[in-house]
Amino acid sequence: MRAEGLAEAVTEDNRDRMRPYEIIKTKRLGGTLPDEAVREFVGGFVRGEVSDAEMAAFLMAVYYKGMSEAETSALTQAMVASGETLDLSDIRGPTVDKHSTGGVGDKTSLVVVPLVASAGVRVAKLSGRALGHTGGTLDKLEAIPGLRAEMEPRALIAQVNRVGCAIAGQSGKLVPADRRLYALRDRTATVDSVPLIAASVMSKKIAAGSRAIVLYVKTGSGAFMKTAADARALAQMMVKIGRAAGRRTAAVLSSMEQPLGRTVGNAVEVGEAIRTLRGEGPDDVTHLALTLGAEMLLLADAAAGPAEARKRLEGALARGDGARTFAAMIEAQGGDPRVVDEPARLPLAKIEQPVPADADGVVTHIDAEGIGYAAIAVGAGRATSRDRIDPGAGIILERKVGHPVRRGEPLATLRGSDEARIRDARRGVLDAYRIGAETPGAPSLVLDVIE
Amino acid sequence: MRAEGLAEAVTEDNRDRMRPYEIIKTKRLGGTLPDEAVREFVGGFVRGEVSDAEMAAFLMAVYYKGMSEAETSALTQAMVASGETLDLSDIRGPTVDKHSTGGVGDKTSLVVVPLVASAGVRVAKLSGRALGHTGGTLDKLEAIPGLRAEMEPRALIAQVNRVGCAIAGQSGKLVPADRRLYALRDRTATVDSVPLIAASVMSKKIAAGSRAIVLYVKTGSGAFMKTAADARALAQMMVKIGRAAGRRTAAVLSSMEQPLGRTVGNAVEVGEAIRTLRGEGPDDVTHLALTLGAEMLLLADAAAGPAEARKRLEGALARGDGARTFAAMIEAQGGDPRVVDEPARLPLAKIEQPVPADADGVVTHIDAEGIGYAAIAVGAGRATSRDRIDPGAGIILERKVGHPVRRGEPLATLRGSDEARIRDARRGVLDAYRIGAETPGAPSLVLDVIE
Repeated sequence: MRAEGLAEAVTEDNRDRMRPYEIIKTKRLGGTLPDEAVREFVGGFVRGEVSDAEMAAFLMAVYYKGMSEAETSALTQAMVASGETLDLSDIRGPTVDKHSTGGVGDKTSLVVVPLVASAGVRVAKLSGRALGHTGGTLDKLEAIPGLRAEMEPRALIAQVNRVGCAIAGQSGKLVPADRRLYALRDRTATVDSVPLIAASVMSKKIAAGSRAIVLYVKTGSGAFMKTAADARALAQMMVKIGRAAGRRTAAVLSSMEQPLGRTVGNAVEVGEAIRTLRGEGPDDVTHLALTLGAEMLLLADAAAGPAEARKRLEGALARGDGARTFAAMIEAQGGDPRVVDEPARLPLAKIEQPVPADADGVVTHIDAEGIGYAAIAVGAGRATSRDRIDPGAGIILERKVGHPVRRGEPLATLRGSDEARIRDARRGVLDAYRIGAETPGAPSLVLDVIE
Repeated sequence: MRAEGLAEAVTEDNRDRMRPYEIIKTKRLGGTLPDEAVREFVGGFVRGEVSDAEMAAFLMAVYYKGMSEAETSALTQAMVASGETLDLSDIRGPTVDKHSTGGVGDKTSLVVVPLVASAGVRVAKLSGRALGHTGGTLDKLEAIPGLRAEMEPRALIAQVNRVGCAIAGQSGKLVPADRRLYALRDRTATVDSVPLIAASVMSKKIAAGSRAIVLYVKTGSGAFMKTAADARALAQMMVKIGRAAGRRTAAVLSSMEQPLGRTVGNAVEVGEAIRTLRGEGPDDVTHLALTLGAEMLLLADAAAGPAEARKRLEGALARGDGARTFAAMIEAQGGDPRVVDEPARLPLAKIEQPVPADADGVVTHIDAEGIGYAAIAVGAGRATSRDRIDPGAGIILERKVGHPVRRGEPLATLRGSDEARIRDARRGVLDAYRIGAETPGAPSLVLDVIE
């Protein structure tokens, strides 16, 4: 009960460098830390001089008291400085990266990356794996027979120069502080903090080396940010961090009140991405891909304005340019490019089971999180990081919000390899659907673009 | 960004036992935890199953969100259960313990323990050592030549039966959870939280085995609790915890706007305690000792009411009963009992230096914390737990609040063994005194008794 005053007295001698105790206490009281203090604290954590316990207390204080833009930028930069950074200067032409905050059925990266590349903008995208109710781009991509997502920086750069794009696993050497901080936040219930999320995302994007970054931030029941206000705050914070680091940055803010597109899983989502690249995709996926892609072209100065950017991408879809670039990317990464023309070459789990509606009416809501957990149940995701994914498992949504349905007609079709898991998933899907009498208003998909 | 939902999903299976993650998150959101969850969490921490980082995040959430009485009681009981408890059932007669939250110049234990014992109530008091700007009772006691404060439970009980009281160091086997939690709080800036302080104090008092507990809670610039509202909340919380554990408990709430008594140090405070036991002590020390002692007699059913309790103690002071019991206690603990009659046998540091006033006027304020740090400077306290104490060093306050002083007259006298340290202390003392033109109102010492 007496050491608090003591610690202050002891540190009087050493005013020029804040100690961990003072940094934690300053944040606990809601104060703002100098950049140097944030750098020292994160640097000390990486070097093992600041303990997990000190960092955990700090993170919880940040959960309550937040961080200023300057503090969050300093945190981001300190995280970037914890490891190597990717030098993309050998890539010819402008480079643009894209990030999605997790969402159920989000296959936009598989569409946007080759689409934008087919329009002449270089995309070297590093992606993550599935954990929890949202899928991971790498797991989806690796559902393509033979495809390898892990590659060395030199190979990545060579591939981007050759075919225009690559989607690869993030090297363990980039932003090691993020992995350690994330593991700590995951154990200490300090994950959902806007500045901590912003720093985590932006540290990885900045370390990944692209000159421009387009962020796809979702809000709603199926997204990580449950409210539009939080999602907007996150988007604004990330855009500011990106600019402070000298990157052109924009964010597309979108609602996620039901899963995106018609498929949730791995191979099934690759199939839907390919259909979208052929101009035959669902409206929501197509619309988002065009919105995100147009922002990417604009940030790369590859179009004079939004209308021109969108038009170029619509042309690329109509001509199948994006599909061809996707095939080239798949081939460059060791995968079978024939999947683009022959989707039957994608793996498909052997058991197929429809989920029939238990009432007549109109679909008024599909809880995306519930569908995400049903996808885990059926084998398409991971409940723990050690779980193996069944690439051919997934859910096809036969009805989406606004669609009429009759009792006994399929709401969704499940694909899996295990009867018991399919039964679990079936219950989850039924719970996720709401069927009512009234046709709901069309959900607005893109809420805003923050530039 | 996705694991928060995941952790919840995984734990759905296991509703009957909250996991650390859920416990932290529940507290983070301001929820109230079931007793069982608090017990599991603290038990897991002691067993090494809950990490320091998880506990640190929890403590920071408690700093912001507090704990209910039931939660704080559960925390206290879990801490008590982490180690051994003292069984005082072999002591004949009622046992009463006393606790002070730290304060500068607080020698009340040295007065109250023998005084109350001389009135027939058994006191087996475990005390701590100095750290920071407030002194420790054990360090003061050990300024008496030969005295040993460390003793085994069996010897403690035998001594209390023989002479009526003992003041001993707390065994390392009692409440090990408190030591670990306190060390963690000290590093993570989570010390000043009312429920955490309450649980720390009460776990030690409950484990120490007395049937009744009187708490001395101070507020003001020289105390740990800076506001009366916080001090009252702490006192009320501790009284409730004590009762929930089946102990008769009361708290005396007192202001601490200047150091207590005329001395700050170790041997000098022992001398002042002896003078008080002879009925020659300063008014504030005498008044507090009588107030605390009367509460102790009442809780032990050794007096019919407050007036009788006080009268008995005043009689004991007048007759020197308490001084005789103090001498017996000192002798029983191996010390030289002659110090009670011959205070010159107490150690005294060789250098004496007055601190003259730099202005004419009236003393309007003495910053107790500042005097506490000056006492560390002169060698009477510890800046770190490894520092050695100079038992003969200290500060004699020649003027207290309300006293007139002329420029050049001594405000205080320093005793120390090192010229440079005395110079530092002198500056600290001058800074701590405020001299003005107006006579301040008399500070009210005892604010309330919470029963």
